[in-house]
Amino acid sequence: MKAQAMPNWLIKRAELTPSRTAVIFQQESRTFAELHEASLRTAKQLGFLGIQSGDHVALLLQNRIETVVLIHALTYIGAVTVMLNTRLTPHELAWQIEDANVKYLIYDSHNQDKAASLPQSSKRNWQGSLCDEVFALPEKEIPIRKEIDLDEIHTIIYTSGTTGYPKGVMLSYGNHWWSAIGSSLNLGLDADDCWLAALPFFHVSGLSILMRSVIYGISVLIHDRFDPAEANQAILQGEVTHISVVSNMLARMLSELKEPSYPKRFRCMLAGGGPVPLHLLEECKSRGIPVYQTYGMTETASQIVTLGPEYMLSKLGSAGKPLFPAELRIEKDGKVLAAGEVGEIVVKGPSITKGYYLREEATRQAIQNDWFYTGDLGYVDEEGFLYVLDRRSDLIISGGENIYPAEIEHVLTSFPAIEDAGVIGVSHENWGQVPIAFVKMREGFTMNEDEILQYCRERLARYKVPHALHLIDEIPRNAANKILRRKLRENFLLPRNES
Amino acid sequence: MKAQAMPNWLIKRAELTPSRTAVIFQQESRTFAELHEASLRTAKQLGFLGIQSGDHVALLLQNRIETVVLIHALTYIGAVTVMLNTRLTPHELAWQIEDANVKYLIYDSHNQDKAASLPQSSKRNWQGSLCDEVFALPEKEIPIRKEIDLDEIHTIIYTSGTTGYPKGVMLSYGNHWWSAIGSSLNLGLDADDCWLAALPFFHVSGLSILMRSVIYGISVLIHDRFDPAEANQAILQGEVTHISVVSNMLARMLSELKEPSYPKRFRCMLAGGGPVPLHLLEECKSRGIPVYQTYGMTETASQIVTLGPEYMLSKLGSAGKPLFPAELRIEKDGKVLAAGEVGEIVVKGPSITKGYYLREEATRQAIQNDWFYTGDLGYVDEEGFLYVLDRRSDLIISGGENIYPAEIEHVLTSFPAIEDAGVIGVSHENWGQVPIAFVKMREGFTMNEDEILQYCRERLARYKVPHALHLIDEIPRNAANKILRRKLRENFLLPRNES
Repeated sequence: MKAQAMPNWLIKRAELTPSRTAVIFQQESRTFAELHEASLRTAKQLGFLGIQSGDHVALLLQNRIETVVLIHALTYIGAVTVMLNTRLTPHELAWQIEDANVKYLIYDSHNQDKAASLPQSSKRNWQGSLCDEVFALPEKEIPIRKEIDLDEIHTIIYTSGTTGYPKGVMLSYGNHWWSAIGSSLNLGLDADDCWLAALPFFHVSGLSILMRSVIYGISVLIHDRFDPAEANQAILQGEVTHISVVSNMLARMLSELKEPSYPKRFRCMLAGGGPVPLHLLEECKSRGIPVYQTYGMTETASQIVTLGPEYMLSKLGSAGKPLFPAELRIEKDGKVLAAGEVGEIVVKGPSITKGYYLREEATRQAIQNDWFYTGDLGYVDEEGFLYVLDRRSDLIISGGENIYPAEIEHVLTSFPAIEDAGVIGVSHENWGQVPIAFVKMREGFTMNEDEILQYCRERLARYKVPHALHLIDEIPRNAANKILRRKLRENFLLPRNES
Repeated sequence: MKAQAMPNWLIKRAELTPSRTAVIFQQESRTFAELHEASLRTAKQLGFLGIQSGDHVALLLQNRIETVVLIHALTYIGAVTVMLNTRLTPHELAWQIEDANVKYLIYDSHNQDKAASLPQSSKRNWQGSLCDEVFALPEKEIPIRKEIDLDEIHTIIYTSGTTGYPKGVMLSYGNHWWSAIGSSLNLGLDADDCWLAALPFFHVSGLSILMRSVIYGISVLIHDRFDPAEANQAILQGEVTHISVVSNMLARMLSELKEPSYPKRFRCMLAGGGPVPLHLLEECKSRGIPVYQTYGMTETASQIVTLGPEYMLSKLGSAGKPLFPAELRIEKDGKVLAAGEVGEIVVKGPSITKGYYLREEATRQAIQNDWFYTGDLGYVDEEGFLYVLDRRSDLIISGGENIYPAEIEHVLTSFPAIEDAGVIGVSHENWGQVPIAFVKMREGFTMNEDEILQYCRERLARYKVPHALHLIDEIPRNAANKILRRKLRENFLLPRNES
């Protein structure tokens, strides 16, 4: 007996609401029945490739309908989907593919060159296919998993940490399910809802929209990249009721918006990836745009704390309250703190990951007695509203992407002429923050900025490449040899010195 | 670790949406914060009475705000609530109180006389209190259960079966939770929703409204009895978005309704307790009233199969499709039947009871491999729509109340002069169906109708008392000694012979 068994969500949707629109991309759309048919066919084509239940299959894909089909097709087989960030370098991708024990990689024509340039490693025991080739394969009759179990792993998504090495966050069907349910209990739900997905599906913020679509029976309007004018147009035409954005996307949409406001049908601007600046909130307030600020991460399967628009200004800077049925507390030195006291943000609830793939120690450190230690600092006020003071002390959020300094430092110190390196984030008008680096050269070497940055570009996704390099004599470290990033900022950073 | 732990729903609601209205009754209302405060106080007063976690506490109460407070207060203690049907006779109530191992009975002034007349039994090991007395007690500081577990039992509600003895259906927090979630995924959800509860809270159809209220954060308008004019008025005034009814209530509301239709804000007429007659559906269609027909029972924590208004006429007579994430199949002789074939309706899903209290054998018979055997006959069409042909072959549904013939037969045959008895349901203009009885007298006795009916009235709730008694020579039975109700109907029932 599986207490957590339920029908596969798309199969159930195709039964319950077959003729409702599931996805829209450019001039095309699919109903839930059509999406099911396509996913079923693709599952059989993947079966022809030899992909079986339990296999790890990585996707390196743009946002489009076929991506949605592949994600669901893999659930029909019972395979685990590894969502790869298309902005990563071949080096970074190869590392994740190996770490996740990927058996098969599926990429689209946009990512074909990148897939072809993945380093040939002796450890390489996976195969790859262009998705259009998969869609042309014969179908093999394979067992279709009509029922899923909430405890099974649906997705692995990588997130970096303080160690500099990314870790694969395992998200179960249950994590996605409960995240969707928690969101619906907060935002409400209507059969006519349509969620604009302009964030990539390889991020949990984009993927969670697809999960909500099949669980709720609502449609997703897919954009393959964020364009503020196109996003505005979709909302103004009355198509869209919800959109997920990061602060910087919101800013660009507002500055593009000629009309006084959005139509009344538009119910929710879900803003994640860090707090929204005051002047933007004030503009939203005056233009009647319903902003829900959220706090969440890959490990919580997207939003876990959300602030409704009614508190937008009265609780300025707050991320809100934990969604039903999540819980939240602030801890320091193993003690739960009272309201107003600053400590680590600790959350609990059924949307929280079971752990990091093959990282038992990291999992044990992060999750204790069902409580997930976010590493972020914050406090709750007397009414229970969360204020996030700092994402993990060193986390840099750039245009909604998380950047972990240690990962960049790791690449820099692998450059032969560099002895030591330290990375911090600095404010940036467009991206919120960008990384800059401080380097100490080995004796007898001088800093060749172009060479170092080229080296980084080969090994790091573009958004992670430092916007400036500063030569210093010594990287400040504490007794435990940890970089003192605060000192880097105080001692060496000149105002406006970043590019 | 409890995988299924979550905050107590009302406590969470009082945190998330403290100032939203939770309940309205006559001129009074309570916000979620106020309902929480009242429930907390009452929990401490119940604690003063000595009620502890795990205790079984029976409620014999009308629908009003205090009933809601008591139901939530018991969850704060972690006690199990036994919901008693106020229409039962003292005999029937005493039986359920004993069977459910009730430690404490709480009744209101409307039910005070009935509570006082409960037979003094030697087995009696429970105490009782008037609820107004409870609310005047001092408060004792007791441990408050801030977290519940979905696997814990929330409620026991009795339902009769073919054996003639009622069985206590154990409904867990999870059963109520999943029922509410399944309903929201079907009907949608809005923070401004308001559900009219005109069905008693001791029925799962009424109780489930209270559960939805705290899970969704919506308000409940409580009526202490069903009055079609008052129900219409509440809807016409724009207060109400949803109402739960049985067919007969719907008929009375329609015949009272002077206006052409209900306001647009009214979204859902949830009609359970048997199919709605064609002429009523046609009237609803022409008046633009959104009727959702449902199929469900105590064991499924209310609706588990629902037909949306868009299929009201095209799928006439259908109960719809199983709610997300429930499943349905039709079985006969252990085999799953194809579309169109008639067999037993078997359902599965997280809203289904864990079983009958202290009835292991009955539980084993009813629930096999997570599938619940309803005993009802039906089929699904090619598109997956369920058609219920017959509630458990012998079930009589009278004004939304389930009547099990065996229970009445059991009382009849305990009458000294009656040797054997058989009960069937016959159509009735107001109540849908009513029970009538056939009796065989012992040799040397004649039938004294008044005496027998008086005997029944003392032992059976009014709606179960036969509307007619027919004297016959022999009750038709098969080789296994089972009553052949079909033969009773064919051989002895004269048209319009019932009262």
